[in-house]
Amino acid sequence: MYDLIIIGGGPAGYNAAERASESGLKTLVIEKRAMGGVCLNEGCIPTKTLLYSAKIYDYAKHSDAYGVTFEGAKIDHAKVIDRKGKVVKMLVSGVEAKMKKHGVEVVKAAAVIKEKTADGFTVEADGKEYQAKNLLICTGSEAAVPPIPGLREAVAAGFAKTNREILDMKEVPKELVIIGGGVIGLEMASYFNSIGSHVRVIEMLDHIAGPTDGEISALLLKTYKKKGIEFLLKAKVTSVGKDCVNYELDGKEQSAKADVVLVSIGRRANSAGIGLENIGVITERGAIVTSDTCATNVPGVYAAGDVNGKIMLAHTAYREGEVAINNILGKKDRVNYNSIPSVIYTNPEVASVGETQESVKAKGLDAKVESFTMNYSGRYIAENEGGDGIVKLIIDKKHRTILGVHMFGTYASEIIYGAAMMVEKEMRVEDVHKLVFPHPTVSEVIREALHMI
Amino acid sequence: MYDLIIIGGGPAGYNAAERASESGLKTLVIEKRAMGGVCLNEGCIPTKTLLYSAKIYDYAKHSDAYGVTFEGAKIDHAKVIDRKGKVVKMLVSGVEAKMKKHGVEVVKAAAVIKEKTADGFTVEADGKEYQAKNLLICTGSEAAVPPIPGLREAVAAGFAKTNREILDMKEVPKELVIIGGGVIGLEMASYFNSIGSHVRVIEMLDHIAGPTDGEISALLLKTYKKKGIEFLLKAKVTSVGKDCVNYELDGKEQSAKADVVLVSIGRRANSAGIGLENIGVITERGAIVTSDTCATNVPGVYAAGDVNGKIMLAHTAYREGEVAINNILGKKDRVNYNSIPSVIYTNPEVASVGETQESVKAKGLDAKVESFTMNYSGRYIAENEGGDGIVKLIIDKKHRTILGVHMFGTYASEIIYGAAMMVEKEMRVEDVHKLVFPHPTVSEVIREALHMI
Repeated sequence: MYDLIIIGGGPAGYNAAERASESGLKTLVIEKRAMGGVCLNEGCIPTKTLLYSAKIYDYAKHSDAYGVTFEGAKIDHAKVIDRKGKVVKMLVSGVEAKMKKHGVEVVKAAAVIKEKTADGFTVEADGKEYQAKNLLICTGSEAAVPPIPGLREAVAAGFAKTNREILDMKEVPKELVIIGGGVIGLEMASYFNSIGSHVRVIEMLDHIAGPTDGEISALLLKTYKKKGIEFLLKAKVTSVGKDCVNYELDGKEQSAKADVVLVSIGRRANSAGIGLENIGVITERGAIVTSDTCATNVPGVYAAGDVNGKIMLAHTAYREGEVAINNILGKKDRVNYNSIPSVIYTNPEVASVGETQESVKAKGLDAKVESFTMNYSGRYIAENEGGDGIVKLIIDKKHRTILGVHMFGTYASEIIYGAAMMVEKEMRVEDVHKLVFPHPTVSEVIREALHMI
Repeated sequence: MYDLIIIGGGPAGYNAAERASESGLKTLVIEKRAMGGVCLNEGCIPTKTLLYSAKIYDYAKHSDAYGVTFEGAKIDHAKVIDRKGKVVKMLVSGVEAKMKKHGVEVVKAAAVIKEKTADGFTVEADGKEYQAKNLLICTGSEAAVPPIPGLREAVAAGFAKTNREILDMKEVPKELVIIGGGVIGLEMASYFNSIGSHVRVIEMLDHIAGPTDGEISALLLKTYKKKGIEFLLKAKVTSVGKDCVNYELDGKEQSAKADVVLVSIGRRANSAGIGLENIGVITERGAIVTSDTCATNVPGVYAAGDVNGKIMLAHTAYREGEVAINNILGKKDRVNYNSIPSVIYTNPEVASVGETQESVKAKGLDAKVESFTMNYSGRYIAENEGGDGIVKLIIDKKHRTILGVHMFGTYASEIIYGAAMMVEKEMRVEDVHKLVFPHPTVSEVIREALHMI
């Protein structure tokens, strides 16, 4: 009998297992693929490995302005993919070592919840049965492959790829067509554009980057158009052929030739085939319904990470896993979904937290919204010739609290956690005036902007 | 009659002028050189411009591991210096434009305080007299040139340079000898090492980087030794010759050949010749004595920035200037010198805030001190082959508050402001557990480390 069985060893699961075990819960993790989940194996980490190589290569292409010149810069995509493999392997072993260190048992198999018993729950994996008082479901998500004519056949044939397969592809496609201009589509567009592919992004909406602040989304679009990526907005994919993607744009049927197609339309919670129906866990459009304590409708059963279909980000999963454990331990805790930062690792980067111009309008909040150039930062100017980075602030008019911070520019990914702290702690503009930001940094633009708003 | 005369238009002065003017104070700034002070003209900004070019060049030298190769990488130091000039010019105009926008008057001349009157103070500049109710002295600091035999002659001859002159030097010295292994010395050592100079650093102490955490100072030393910089520790410079620096090490007189010598032993407050004695402002070893409200002993007279000899950093100056203005306006405010971050822009970077292992020992605080590898961050691994970055935490044992955070590794400069917030707000370890850090970032190592301590 375990105190806790965690189904799925991705960010939600492995992190929760650590916390649970630290608190004395006898914990079992059941994972059918590699520990680390999508994030570590085919998501966050591998993409960042690729994007870093591309960044070094990009530097060389634009280094003249900084007094540095090169000849014959080359990027070896196959080598980049090999290195990615090594980085992933190292981190997966790291997670496995952590499980061992914390005394967490790990079973490598698919898990199916069998029944609720008087003492708890029974889970079957690899023909064996395991019992636990509590369950935490962290089965994650997978790339949605919608019923577009020809798409499933194209995926089966290897012509169309999801985030999983594209990260193992060692050739550089001459023509890459990306269906879906969200975060995953954009990061891959950025990488393949840097290494020399001709990239076309087909997006149904009239803008890229999903719920990102509209002004920043437009800036990103402009930047990537300038770099040579083609964007087909308000375009609907109608079918996928053997060497092309067909779409409708402005009422006309058109076709984009492709060597490879990336499908990045969205992600679907992995809730099927794990026996949720055996204990009556409620799902909605495939996602497990949870409260902000990460509890499901069944007492003793929690869910964390992508499987709840809320904010599908690894760090949300971490936090949700921790909140679930705290609630299992009887400590009150809840996820504040308003202060979760998000990042797009394009070059320049996009990082956001809290309300956007669009969300305050929709919610009818009385907020001041203003954008400021990053050129208020001396470091930004020193490191970005002709840079058009911005920081955008959303401030509650009455209470002067910081509701949202959005950044487009270098280092944004590493700066945003502090802004998330301001939003989470409901800090006022005047509170931040008393904080000292090191000079010269790009982080200072937050301070400067808060003085100007 | 002005409400406020600010003597000195560096970071303390120009920032205070903005704040004062925003609050309705009729403000005059008197500056004898260029607006922006040492920071903008011969300090923070120009050095970062140089270091960024060196970073791009360094990337190219170590890009193989990331699948990127180059031939014939070249750095054109003269071009780097030219670009630096342009960046500085742009930022100085920016400061001038801000003064105009805020309605701050600027007089370009040397200022001398003449007397205290019934209404306030009289200041003379360029033969004219100006009156104000309050004075804010922000005259900054300059490089100390101690009475080492031959040193002043060497400076006069251009063979020895301070931070000011070295930033205008267009040649790459074959042999660069740096006297003083503090922040300025190390940043310049880093740059000239990258662009091909043979660099020797002569330091009196047994460690580099001054009050930096000992472990990090040792890591930095190791890293820079590996890059080819020679460090002569516990070495005392005895004289400077025409083409060499003579020093005593292990009781033996030795000599280091040099094409150029950089003197970076420390900085001296600029308190002479500005008429402090005319109104009785007290100084101690040349620095104006101030309280944490930035008041001097003379009512109505404040001082901010390097001239107070406390923490000689531009961002401290910003904050001090603001605190002075708030106190002039009758708003209570004080500088918390415990939560001021500091950065060394070497590659990798060093960033620190709060107590160090050494300071808690000296103060007898009951603190837990522990270091963690940055390899807990997936992004760090993705971007740093063989990296040895660390984050070091200083935690109050009883209250579990975060007393200090020290980082050695990429992005440290942009991450540290958030850690400063934790120290300033006296956050506890458990408070930070509830914050969400974006994944994958290097900033996450703070979160990870706080879970492990």
